[in-house]
Amino acid sequence: MSDTAPAREKDQRCRIIETAERLFRQLGFQKTTVSDIARELRMSPANVYRFFGTKSEINEAVARQIMGEIEAAAEKIASGPGTAAERLRQVIRTNESMSAERYIADRKLHDMVDVALTEKWPIVDAHVEHMGTILTRIVAEGMEAGEFARHDPLLMARLVHSACIRYCHPRLMVECCDYTEPSSDQMMDFCLAALKAGM
Amino acid sequence: MSDTAPAREKDQRCRIIETAERLFRQLGFQKTTVSDIARELRMSPANVYRFFGTKSEINEAVARQIMGEIEAAAEKIASGPGTAAERLRQVIRTNESMSAERYIADRKLHDMVDVALTEKWPIVDAHVEHMGTILTRIVAEGMEAGEFARHDPLLMARLVHSACIRYCHPRLMVECCDYTEPSSDQMMDFCLAALKAGM
Repeated sequence: MSDTAPAREKDQRCRIIETAERLFRQLGFQKTTVSDIARELRMSPANVYRFFGTKSEINEAVARQIMGEIEAAAEKIASGPGTAAERLRQVIRTNESMSAERYIADRKLHDMVDVALTEKWPIVDAHVEHMGTILTRIVAEGMEAGEFARHDPLLMARLVHSACIRYCHPRLMVECCDYTEPSSDQMMDFCLAALKAGM
Repeated sequence: MSDTAPAREKDQRCRIIETAERLFRQLGFQKTTVSDIARELRMSPANVYRFFGTKSEINEAVARQIMGEIEAAAEKIASGPGTAAERLRQVIRTNESMSAERYIADRKLHDMVDVALTEKWPIVDAHVEHMGTILTRIVAEGMEAGEFARHDPLLMARLVHSACIRYCHPRLMVECCDYTEPSSDQMMDFCLAALKAGM
C-alpha cells in the first residue's frame, strides 16, 4: 500500500507537517519560513508548495495535528470503560493536561494558538465542535444508563463544556493560572451534581 | 463641604476621569493624550499631572470607574429583594448586559480592556475579587435560608463565577458571540441545580 502514489503523497504531507511542528516549537511559527521547512526535509520550496499552497495552510495543518491528538485521546476515553461521570471527568482532565503541555509549557506554540484564536482560524471552531460531540455522546450515555437526569444531551454537554472553559481554552488557562481554585476536579463535581439532579 | 480643599480636589479628579473616559470612547484610549484631556478641561497638562502622575494612572482610573459601575449594580441587587437564586441570576445577567454595552458595543473601550487583560492591570484582579465577594455573600445567604445545600460558600461562589466566565469576561464574550447556546440563563439553571443538590 505504502508504495502507491496516494500513500506516498500522504507520507510527504505528514513529513512536512511534522517538520513544521518541530520548527514551530524551536523558532516560533511566525519566524519559520517555507524555505526553512524545505531545507530540513532536503527538498525544494516548490515541492513543499505542491502540498500546501500557502504558509497559512501549513500553519492550519500543524494546528489541526495538535488539536487532533487531544481529540483522539478524548475519543479513546469516551469509548473506554467507566461510568459516564468517570469518563466525563477524564476527558476534561486529559484536555487540561494535554493543552497545558502543548500550549502553556511551550510558549512558542502558545503564540500560534493566540493568533489562531484572534484570527478565528476555522480549525478552532471545528475542534470545539468535535470536543462537544464527544461530550454529548458521554452525557447521552449517562442519561441512557440512568446516571444523569433525562434532558437534552446536547444542551447539557454544552453547559459542561462552557462551565469547564477555563480548563480547555489555552488563553484562559494562561490568564487564570494564578487562580488555583476551583480546580477542574471541583468543577466536574459541580457539573456532575447538576447532571444528576437535572434542571 | 464642596468648598473645602479636599472636596475640590476630589471634584477635579472626577472631572479628569470623566473627560478621559469620554475621549477614550471617541478617540480610543491609546490615541488620547494627557494634552487632549487637559485641553477639553481648559487646564494645563501640568495641572492634570498634579492628580495623575502618569497616563497609565488615568487609564487605570477610567477602568476602575467603569468596573465600579458594574460592581455597584451587583451590590444593589445583592442587597435587594428576592431569593438567593433570583439575585444570583440577576447579578450574572446584569454583569453580562452592562459588560456588553461597555466593552462589546464600544470597540474603542474594548481595546482598553484587551490591553488591561494582556498587561494584567491590578484593577482587573480587584474587580474579579469584588464580584466574587458579592457572589459569595448571596450564596452564603442561600445556604443560610435553606435554598442551597450546605457547603463552603466561597468555593461554591467561585464555581458559579467560573462556570459563568463566558458571560462576564469581555474578551470571551467577543470570542463566543457566535455560540448562542448555552445562554447565561441556561447556565444559571445549571448552576442552581448544582447549588440546590449539593456535591
